Amino acid sequence: MSQDSTERSPGDLRNTGLSLKHDREWDYELDRIVAAVEERDASKVGLQFPEGLKRRSAAVTDDLREHLPEDVVVMTSGQPCYGACDLDTFLMRRTDVFVHFGHSPMKESDKIIYVPLFSNVEVTPIVERAVDEQLDPPEDDADVGLVTTAQHMNRFDQMRAFLEDRGYTVHTRRGDDRLTHEGQVLGCNYASADVDADQVLYVGGGKFHPLGLAMEHPEKHVVIADPVNNVVTVADAEQFMKQRYATVHKAMDADTWGVIFCTKIGQGRWETAEEIVAGNDDAYLVTMDEITPDRLTNFPYDAYVNTGCPRITTDDGPQFKQPLLTPGEYEIAIGEKPLDSLSFDTFHGTW
Amino acid sequence: MSQDSTERSPGDLRNTGLSLKHDREWDYELDRIVAAVEERDASKVGLQFPEGLKRRSAAVTDDLREHLPEDVVVMTSGQPCYGACDLDTFLMRRTDVFVHFGHSPMKESDKIIYVPLFSNVEVTPIVERAVDEQLDPPEDDADVGLVTTAQHMNRFDQMRAFLEDRGYTVHTRRGDDRLTHEGQVLGCNYASADVDADQVLYVGGGKFHPLGLAMEHPEKHVVIADPVNNVVTVADAEQFMKQRYATVHKAMDADTWGVIFCTKIGQGRWETAEEIVAGNDDAYLVTMDEITPDRLTNFPYDAYVNTGCPRITTDDGPQFKQPLLTPGEYEIAIGEKPLDSLSFDTFHGTW
Repeated sequence: MSQDSTERSPGDLRNTGLSLKHDREWDYELDRIVAAVEERDASKVGLQFPEGLKRRSAAVTDDLREHLPEDVVVMTSGQPCYGACDLDTFLMRRTDVFVHFGHSPMKESDKIIYVPLFSNVEVTPIVERAVDEQLDPPEDDADVGLVTTAQHMNRFDQMRAFLEDRGYTVHTRRGDDRLTHEGQVLGCNYASADVDADQVLYVGGGKFHPLGLAMEHPEKHVVIADPVNNVVTVADAEQFMKQRYATVHKAMDADTWGVIFCTKIGQGRWETAEEIVAGNDDAYLVTMDEITPDRLTNFPYDAYVNTGCPRITTDDGPQFKQPLLTPGEYEIAIGEKPLDSLSFDTFHGTW
Repeated sequence: MSQDSTERSPGDLRNTGLSLKHDREWDYELDRIVAAVEERDASKVGLQFPEGLKRRSAAVTDDLREHLPEDVVVMTSGQPCYGACDLDTFLMRRTDVFVHFGHSPMKESDKIIYVPLFSNVEVTPIVERAVDEQLDPPEDDADVGLVTTAQHMNRFDQMRAFLEDRGYTVHTRRGDDRLTHEGQVLGCNYASADVDADQVLYVGGGKFHPLGLAMEHPEKHVVIADPVNNVVTVADAEQFMKQRYATVHKAMDADTWGVIFCTKIGQGRWETAEEIVAGNDDAYLVTMDEITPDRLTNFPYDAYVNTGCPRITTDDGPQFKQPLLTPGEYEIAIGEKPLDSLSFDTFHGTW
């Protein structure tokens, strides 16, 4: 088992966005947690961190223990966690207070305290560089879309104001009910970038979100302003699209299909999975939470359709022995849709 | 993610016992499943196979589909499965008929159809060889313990009869309520070998069970009669015990401890985990189902106590970056027990 190897795919989900060069401090909102414990007379507190913040779990637990009655048990989820779609429902159901750190609410619930952990990184300097280096000047094209991730939402108004000061008309929207905020993107949902502008400015860390953004909106000029690594680049999904085409072609030879239904609370598309299996005698439903190459090794199928997280298909796909397709790519592979209908698989709704 | 690499530890849990040289046929008891679907007017059927039988899931699904109404959806668990302790409770709760293949019942339940998949391999020839080559002759020591795994329970009486014919007094017992049958062993429970005999004959495939047996009963002469690979050997846990001592020594330097509570239905020891954390300010509870090196990578602890499946600690332990101890070994490492109290960690009860 060498999953902890350093070999990682370009869009590896495991450390995305949160293993950062830039030093940051987070507000863990411990007061809110302590108040909830008191209010509910809780005896068990569950904490869930995204991968990059799990190393802080000991310090957060220490701080909580200091403020909580001695008989309150604090425990941390050791399940991998890649988003608000990925709640540890086991821990949630078995604790009186359940805290999900690092993501904005996908769906509000009394059972869950979401602590978004906004970044304290300044955004104006990198937005300025992006404007100067990569955006069309307002006199050529005044329309610009603006999107960011949950961590930088606290500075969204600053970004917008800066662009408007420079003479741009800033187009923003809230994508759909999977997203909490106007202008917010998720790894699987870029509906907020679906605005009336040919250029879009993405402000945020990592390569994970811009890659999805560029795949979802290949017609737009997507400029990345990364305030964490202090880099301005232009998103390019070409390599990934080539990879997708190659995978679809390979899957065209498949005699049997495994159709994966993901059991994570916010990653299930039951109707999609059921429909594929109902329509193809050579398709077989397989259910799982984490979708990894190892878990498919013992199954006998020639190719797989992943109805769960689209980013596993896109980013980790090449690590799987058999072709792993999105539902849309599956339709192309079995000849139900033309090859040029290939597009990025996005995820909508909550649960 | 290269979990599907060929590098495996001697006691690797992933293919044990079921990736066999000897050709076998299994009785999947499809009639019983079809009857249950009809009786319950079921619309969803869930199947769970151990790792080595997952490749048969397509054929079993095909056969079931042939006998079931067309609108019945059959799905297979893609979660790793290492025993009857390891039920896919998600699938169980969301299907009308849930079938667990390859293990004998740890606990009977109306929700679960257990299909034990008895082996059709002959056992008498290999028992004869074991008697001739490795057991003390009855005139020197007439007492012999007899144990086997669930797969060979259907031939247990044959084994016993053969030994008695040769003049042995065969000692057997049912271990405890974690075990279904008299003489049965599990990877984590060898209570059935706790008999009044200095020599024990284990009949079964693989290295997984004999290794545990030898660690649990270091004072006994444990003879392995493997009817699947047609091999007779003597179990030797020395290498593993050395490894355990080395790991305990390494863990003595730990300042902080992660205490793992396993969330799998039959692998949880809550009181043990809670007690450790209550007694040590530097211990932190971490909950998870699969316990893998990768899942611990992002946590900050110096050493871990695994209160879940003992075989992960013993067999996969060396693959973890930090020392991974059993609860008993933890007590030694923090100085609560003497070094020579080190023993194999067994698991009792059900859930």
